[in-house]
Amino acid sequence: LWTRGSDLLWHQGKISPGSEAPFNLADRGLLLADGLFETVLVIQGQPVLLSEHLDRFGRGCSRLSIDFDRTMAERAILDLAAAKAGDAIVRATITRGTGARGLQPPLDAHPVLFATRADWTKALAFTSPRLSVSSIRRNATSPLSRLKSLSYMDNVLALIEAQGKGADDALMLSTTGSVACSSAANVFILEGRRLATPPPEEGVLDGIMRGFILAAAPSMGLDVSEEPFGTDRLMGADAIFLTNSVRLMMPVAAVDGIELPLGSATVARLAAAIAAVAGLEPSTRITASMP
Amino acid sequence: LWTRGSDLLWHQGKISPGSEAPFNLADRGLLLADGLFETVLVIQGQPVLLSEHLDRFGRGCSRLSIDFDRTMAERAILDLAAAKAGDAIVRATITRGTGARGLQPPLDAHPVLFATRADWTKALAFTSPRLSVSSIRRNATSPLSRLKSLSYMDNVLALIEAQGKGADDALMLSTTGSVACSSAANVFILEGRRLATPPPEEGVLDGIMRGFILAAAPSMGLDVSEEPFGTDRLMGADAIFLTNSVRLMMPVAAVDGIELPLGSATVARLAAAIAAVAGLEPSTRITASMP
Repeated sequence: LWTRGSDLLWHQGKISPGSEAPFNLADRGLLLADGLFETVLVIQGQPVLLSEHLDRFGRGCSRLSIDFDRTMAERAILDLAAAKAGDAIVRATITRGTGARGLQPPLDAHPVLFATRADWTKALAFTSPRLSVSSIRRNATSPLSRLKSLSYMDNVLALIEAQGKGADDALMLSTTGSVACSSAANVFILEGRRLATPPPEEGVLDGIMRGFILAAAPSMGLDVSEEPFGTDRLMGADAIFLTNSVRLMMPVAAVDGIELPLGSATVARLAAAIAAVAGLEPSTRITASMP
Repeated sequence: LWTRGSDLLWHQGKISPGSEAPFNLADRGLLLADGLFETVLVIQGQPVLLSEHLDRFGRGCSRLSIDFDRTMAERAILDLAAAKAGDAIVRATITRGTGARGLQPPLDAHPVLFATRADWTKALAFTSPRLSVSSIRRNATSPLSRLKSLSYMDNVLALIEAQGKGADDALMLSTTGSVACSSAANVFILEGRRLATPPPEEGVLDGIMRGFILAAAPSMGLDVSEEPFGTDRLMGADAIFLTNSVRLMMPVAAVDGIELPLGSATVARLAAAIAAVAGLEPSTRITASMP
């Protein structure tokens, strides 16, 4: 059996190398994408914003009526965080488990929880991607568009489409027509002292770093709001940046080939706050581009 | 390990009871829903419309750039069809296999193919469901909405929503506003001698039974077309029916509590044609309701 993937697997309370395990191939996570996940950054052994990740994991499970064992999920993440030296990305995945054939979820589901670990390097964070607007839109009518569910292929296809156009990532609009997110990150625009990010209703995940920015910005003298905006307003902003838990903050260098202003002092201060909460030194990449 | 699911599993060329197998939990099918499936009805050992299923499986893999081994997929389905007496549903699933962490598909992917078998009974087919219009719409901008992909949770949530309203299944509209499908079946409307079903562009799967009806209807003196239509036209039709490979044909009894005409002679003739291609006796359920 050919294997590749994570370097360490947490499964049923035990850690093993690789990611192979006995698995029920009738699991609804595999057959129907009936499950959720969290991707947690681990810096020097410390999971970043762990309780926020566990809170969101629980909220998602509640929405899908999947029994969530927070203690066990926390243990999986902490065990993998401590299993090896070096910064890491720990992904915890929960599925509803097996059920009878068909779409109907079983009433007596036994959820399956596992987690994997991969190395993380600073090169992943604080990059400045060039985006291309995707033809694939986030489905604002779908509850999944607001959950970190296993249904990720729209975003994968949007990423492939963007790369085919020479961009680094996709800028996804919502089916409402508003700006939604990139293939794996939330989007913010800065307009003077105003910071805005689309609300979950637009088909947007409530990202953990997004939540951190929403909470931290007012103390930095910024007005911050969750509100819909279109590409016109986006392109007129002083700065655009993306946030997620692995790549932290990414000032956007271009959209559809149109260069955007980088080097905002406000963006650099926000980046410093994110670096601090992650336990990292401030990004020299971002501070170097400051005016 | 708690197990439930299929009664027989085809995995790496071998059949085993249950559905447990060694599996790489970093498989992209499980982590990102990066894969496709086919559900094939087996009547008296014969897979129904097998080459059509294999054709669609191949088209979907081609769209997702997953290497498809048609001979192996056919073997999996035929092996399971022959493994046991009795009518069955065989589901063949392909995933892209493992990859490095993140959304980017690996260039050197090793797809994983497996198949499961479950019993089928006539009680599943030719039912007359009551539908409820879902708040969750099919995303017409998503290539997945036209593929039998593992991303099935919108449909699962639509089904649960419909059942919560006392209906049997959901009628899903498209993000375009047109009628799309039910949670797991295509929809047709009959207007005199005209038969219409939404085109794939509306976020609709090219169902195998849908294809059979499109091909067979002209020889039965019906005009058939793929065209968008809204709920107004749907509610004014002489008959509405659903089709899929497991439940075959389902005349719709009601939409949002509004009773619909059943017992159309044309629907009964179409049902007889579907029963014939599946190798079944004509449905007494449908012929009994004929005028």
